[in-house]
Amino acid sequence: MYEPRPEHKFTFGLWTVGNIGRDPFGEAVRARLEPDYVVHKLAELGAYGVNLHDEDLIPRGTSPTERAAILRRFKKALEETGLKVPMVTANLFSDPAFKDGALTSPDPWVRAYALKKSLETMDLGAELGAQIYVVWPGREGAEVEATGKAQKAWGWFREALNFMAAYSEDQGYGYRFALEPKPNEPRGDIYLPTVGSMLALIGTLERPHLFGLNPEFAHETMAGLNFVHAVAQALDAGKLFHIDLNDQRMSRFDQDLRFGAENLKASFFLVDLLEHSGYDGPRHFDAHALRTEDEVGVWAFARGCMRTYLILKEKARAFREDPEVKALLDEYYRADPEPLALLGPYSPEKAQKLKALTLPEVRRSRGYALEALDQLAVEHLLGVRG
Amino acid sequence: MYEPRPEHKFTFGLWTVGNIGRDPFGEAVRARLEPDYVVHKLAELGAYGVNLHDEDLIPRGTSPTERAAILRRFKKALEETGLKVPMVTANLFSDPAFKDGALTSPDPWVRAYALKKSLETMDLGAELGAQIYVVWPGREGAEVEATGKAQKAWGWFREALNFMAAYSEDQGYGYRFALEPKPNEPRGDIYLPTVGSMLALIGTLERPHLFGLNPEFAHETMAGLNFVHAVAQALDAGKLFHIDLNDQRMSRFDQDLRFGAENLKASFFLVDLLEHSGYDGPRHFDAHALRTEDEVGVWAFARGCMRTYLILKEKARAFREDPEVKALLDEYYRADPEPLALLGPYSPEKAQKLKALTLPEVRRSRGYALEALDQLAVEHLLGVRG
Amino acid sequence: MYEPRPEHKFTFGLWTVGNIGRDPFGEAVRARLEPDYVVHKLAELGAYGVNLHDEDLIPRGTSPTERAAILRRFKKALEETGLKVPMVTANLFSDPAFKDGALTSPDPWVRAYALKKSLETMDLGAELGAQIYVVWPGREGAEVEATGKAQKAWGWFREALNFMAAYSEDQGYGYRFALEPKPNEPRGDIYLPTVGSMLALIGTLERPHLFGLNPEFAHETMAGLNFVHAVAQALDAGKLFHIDLNDQRMSRFDQDLRFGAENLKASFFLVDLLEHSGYDGPRHFDAHALRTEDEVGVWAFARGCMRTYLILKEKARAFREDPEVKALLDEYYRADPEPLALLGPYSPEKAQKLKALTLPEVRRSRGYALEALDQLAVEHLLGVRG
Amino acid sequence: MYEPRPEHKFTFGLWTVGNIGRDPFGEAVRARLEPDYVVHKLAELGAYGVNLHDEDLIPRGTSPTERAAILRRFKKALEETGLKVPMVTANLFSDPAFKDGALTSPDPWVRAYALKKSLETMDLGAELGAQIYVVWPGREGAEVEATGKAQKAWGWFREALNFMAAYSEDQGYGYRFALEPKPNEPRGDIYLPTVGSMLALIGTLERPHLFGLNPEFAHETMAGLNFVHAVAQALDAGKLFHIDLNDQRMSRFDQDLRFGAENLKASFFLVDLLEHSGYDGPRHFDAHALRTEDEVGVWAFARGCMRTYLILKEKARAFREDPEVKALLDEYYRADPEPLALLGPYSPEKAQKLKALTLPEVRRSRGYALEALDQLAVEHLLGVRG
Repeated sequence: MYEPRPEHKFTFGLWTVGNIGRDPFGEAVRARLEPDYVVHKLAELGAYGVNLHDEDLIPRGTSPTERAAILRRFKKALEETGLKVPMVTANLFSDPAFKDGALTSPDPWVRAYALKKSLETMDLGAELGAQIYVVWPGREGAEVEATGKAQKAWGWFREALNFMAAYSEDQGYGYRFALEPKPNEPRGDIYLPTVGSMLALIGTLERPHLFGLNPEFAHETMAGLNFVHAVAQALDAGKLFHIDLNDQRMSRFDQDLRFGAENLKASFFLVDLLEHSGYDGPRHFDAHALRTEDEVGVWAFARGCMRTYLILKEKARAFREDPEVKALLDEYYRADPEPLALLGPYSPEKAQKLKALTLPEVRRSRGYALEALDQLAVEHLLGVRG
Repeated sequence: MYEPRPEHKFTFGLWTVGNIGRDPFGEAVRARLEPDYVVHKLAELGAYGVNLHDEDLIPRGTSPTERAAILRRFKKALEETGLKVPMVTANLFSDPAFKDGALTSPDPWVRAYALKKSLETMDLGAELGAQIYVVWPGREGAEVEATGKAQKAWGWFREALNFMAAYSEDQGYGYRFALEPKPNEPRGDIYLPTVGSMLALIGTLERPHLFGLNPEFAHETMAGLNFVHAVAQALDAGKLFHIDLNDQRMSRFDQDLRFGAENLKASFFLVDLLEHSGYDGPRHFDAHALRTEDEVGVWAFARGCMRTYLILKEKARAFREDPEVKALLDEYYRADPEPLALLGPYSPEKAQKLKALTLPEVRRSRGYALEALDQLAVEHLLGVRG
Repeated sequence: MYEPRPEHKFTFGLWTVGNIGRDPFGEAVRARLEPDYVVHKLAELGAYGVNLHDEDLIPRGTSPTERAAILRRFKKALEETGLKVPMVTANLFSDPAFKDGALTSPDPWVRAYALKKSLETMDLGAELGAQIYVVWPGREGAEVEATGKAQKAWGWFREALNFMAAYSEDQGYGYRFALEPKPNEPRGDIYLPTVGSMLALIGTLERPHLFGLNPEFAHETMAGLNFVHAVAQALDAGKLFHIDLNDQRMSRFDQDLRFGAENLKASFFLVDLLEHSGYDGPRHFDAHALRTEDEVGVWAFARGCMRTYLILKEKARAFREDPEVKALLDEYYRADPEPLALLGPYSPEKAQKLKALTLPEVRRSRGYALEALDQLAVEHLLGVRG
Repeated sequence: MYEPRPEHKFTFGLWTVGNIGRDPFGEAVRARLEPDYVVHKLAELGAYGVNLHDEDLIPRGTSPTERAAILRRFKKALEETGLKVPMVTANLFSDPAFKDGALTSPDPWVRAYALKKSLETMDLGAELGAQIYVVWPGREGAEVEATGKAQKAWGWFREALNFMAAYSEDQGYGYRFALEPKPNEPRGDIYLPTVGSMLALIGTLERPHLFGLNPEFAHETMAGLNFVHAVAQALDAGKLFHIDLNDQRMSRFDQDLRFGAENLKASFFLVDLLEHSGYDGPRHFDAHALRTEDEVGVWAFARGCMRTYLILKEKARAFREDPEVKALLDEYYRADPEPLALLGPYSPEKAQKLKALTLPEVRRSRGYALEALDQLAVEHLLGVRG
């Protein structure tokens, strides 16, 4: 019943199931997995696609010959399995060159190198059929304000994004660019920390229609923000281009936990929102198995992400169809025509009438029945209802 | 040397120095101060202006005659002292009517009532010469996602803002609207939680040029975000219309501490940014004295906010003129023309050359001297240098 | 199936279901409920008991005659319903007198007054049959370190606790004192912020056996700490005397949400721990209905707290009996006798052998199957298993 | 004037100035420094000592011959410079073996191996003259509660600490054990997350007098707790054995910033507390240079830590001697003998008198002048006073 199939559009990154379990205090605990092996395993599990950073597939310093060989093997695995590569992205964070920023490094050599890497990743993605290009400005930030770089970074970042979009058009690649905000880590603060800040930036670009968001559950949650609201704002703006699903304890280091592992209720309302929003892009799991796990645990983790999503999807359907829920929502949104007539587009007459309005006392004392509604949600979630 | 004067444009809200010290667990500890008395005291201390919510001056239920009398007394105090009222805002949070939202209440009676209150506050502000109208959507949020209101709230909020801007134009009031984000409290989550989310919303309004930001130090800090970066993004977008200065421990209830009371370094770089940005609007202190204080403590608090600002302003000047700082920054931003030539607007030739670029190894191993620069900032701040 | 009954030992405070919905930005939204009315309603819902602050029942300034009348009515309601009063506590936070601390105020008048209030609350509790006396030092904290009070507060607090315990013995009241930590709010920082800090303090008291903990879910969670671990440490020390159940978003103002409203997984493992720990004291819900609610919502809230607890209890039982779970745990804890023989109490021989020990390489590469185990927990929680 | 000298007792870890700048998203940016080189550099800078993990000096897998050679070189450097090794600690976190805990691993092989490593580190420290042995249980935690390990971990941890203390006695090493709490990272939650929880644990050990705390600024701050209060509680309990100085933004990944780099005010009151507490142990900087830095930046960082401490020490002295500060504190702590006589040890007479006490109304309305006092502290800190 909760078996993942390609039409569910579940995707994983090579770096997610391939995570070797290194952390700031500990060494790797798992061996690197070959990309084509990962493709076969993901296909077996019912995934739709596999995403990648340039270096996940083609390590830095790979010769052209080796590159061709790697690509051949990888494409063969894709063909054999039917797996897609919906998204690519450049790794602009591992190389020591990027230690004080990549596209916003104060050093123009580094900015140029980051841009070069981005163009080459676009080329690579085009070879693999990718249509989404993610930009995660993980090193574009600061620990030290004294440089005043916060006044220059916007311009440099815009310049790079404009360049990349023009290149995509020029090459006929047809990419849609999905920007991924994160509040901090690895930098003390990252410059575009939230979904809102990225949406705002898009309005200042040359080709805003090519840019949208790749919001990540864990990233908004690190700042204690409500991810469902953030995704709803992105949807309202027509800018949900891609999504990163995982989990995270609030106000803490980046954990990238299995989807649904921590905030089940927020995950439930996220799935409810996504499934009723018309969004039909990939459901990408940007998470990794706990460091306690061996390879068996990695595949248990991947299966768990997808199963939990499907369970929540089924629950969201049942919740929305529950007559008691519907009755509470009808009452919650019941709209008296008298005040409604005063709202909507401005007119001087409405303004006059509004000023004469007296609020009926019962609108103050009424209750909104949200405890009852929320308890129904909890009981659906816990599976003791419907 | 650090004496505040009107040209410094320091302002306080009636609700700030007039805060009576009630908190979720305790009763009021100070008596209400009469608005005209506050005006005289602020003028004595060297402030430029006083801001207000409608209800700070005209309590709910005041008769037209009383209203006129209050206004007369208040205007008299303004004339006697020369104090301005640069900003007004409607209280859309105290009345129980707003318990599930004001401009985004599910109940159209409440939305209409909130709009009525906003129009009347615009009328009041116009009488007092206010040019900035702040919108703080403090109750526009949720604790319960099950309503799905996060999908409707944007539309309702936009509708109200569009209505208000049209009314301002129609009446010839000339307001600039400054939107104030906050992540949470009093609601579990507030819908437009950050400077970024508000900037993004403005792009979807009918008259975006009339809308800007009123960012608040404490509010971004509650979400653990970097306030200097948020203000820098607002400035980059030309949208810093007003600013709320105060202080706050991160990831905690809203504290509204005396400016500089907690994050001295962030306050320093904020003043550094503001004073070098061309921003010439009010420096508004949206803070209040600790609940441990009597009225004497209130004025000590107000004086402290302004003194600390002026001390930091002087330090920012000295820091920027320090030759050692300048030398470190020159080196930090040193821009080699070779890579610079590959950046900027897109051209196919640049793309070609970028792909051929090899990063010189020294760009990887170089240091950025940020520890030295930051230590200089700390020593300026501590007053042991310059 | 999930109907609460007195033997489940669910209790509520008069201040919880009686919460009138005032918050830092808004006025009361609900009328005060009479204590005897609350008793009857809680009994109807299946609660075991009702707890109270002195002032919840006997408002400040009540005359002795009125006090007697109130007590008569309240006891009558208790008799009619069979409800118990397991716990009492003094309100040492509402009165402006306590604005800079109660038992640790720098003003000895205030310390004496706080102690007087504590003794009188012990008298009141004894009249009502209470056996647990909770101390919540909500105002014992600071926003300003400059006083150095953090060096004196421990002594004053100890002195007061020692006095209270001696008084209880002297009067033959037989109280067990349950100390309740909280990290902040209403003070910037509260002196004994966590379960650990309170446990440590108990070791420095004259009658440590009379003192234990009243840990609160929301309070540890405000500091981003793991409440299950905190309760486990209190249990390990034999110091779980009482418990406050509710819910809370991390790193945020004190929310006191309905039990299970936010962190379902943590609530599940908390119930799992409590129900298997031998703890047989009250399950107290220190929460309140959302401010959006009228009285109907209050009782929906109260019912929801208890139902969710009972649902989770049933799930915890099923989880622990699931053969797949048992098999994973058997493997997880499988203890090879060879290394076990080197552990336990010290001996020079063991030390010698330990130094000669070589870790078998397989202990490094093994996985712990925690993703699989955790997914089983999630699926039990979601009700799709067993 | 602010030149560090050995009598200031500043120490650094080999792992701090030797940090190579790897982070979860990026590769090393600096080369490893030889231990004897570090010793010479630290001595030049005026440090008192150098601390180490076993593996910082003797990498895993070093042969006995190599070990002897390394030790010889290291001791020679110590002799040449006069630097001490006041503290050692075992690295129980890097080895994949410890991925689910070291001293509390569910696998007794791992527990035995962690204990072996601890004993050997004690041997190593004894060779180097160390008198403090730090235990940082960084891997003793969990992401998955389903194991129920939170009920077993206390026992295993106690068992190991008891064993280690007995070994130290048996060998005549004379160690004092300093336990170092941390709330999370690298584990989702660490079992003994705060100073309080460690203090509480000590009370359950066999030789509590041998155990104390090694509190770390960044670690309490990660949980949003007040570090000054935590150190004050440790001092009150006579348990401040060692201290880790650094800095950190609240509610965020572990940053280990330069001392004073972020929370200048908290650092000021910490130095104020330490310098007036009688604590005469090492002032250890458990921090590292930003990843943006090369080796020059590393030494700038180290110098900055010490200079800022000395600047703050001088300011703390001046603050405490400021007559205006003294006057405010005299008034703050003014103790009327009448209520004082009712406090202190219990007596039935005092209890009687307390019950008859009436609080003078002026104790309610008085102010505590904390805004004025705090502003004085800020102005001392900013160097514009005294």
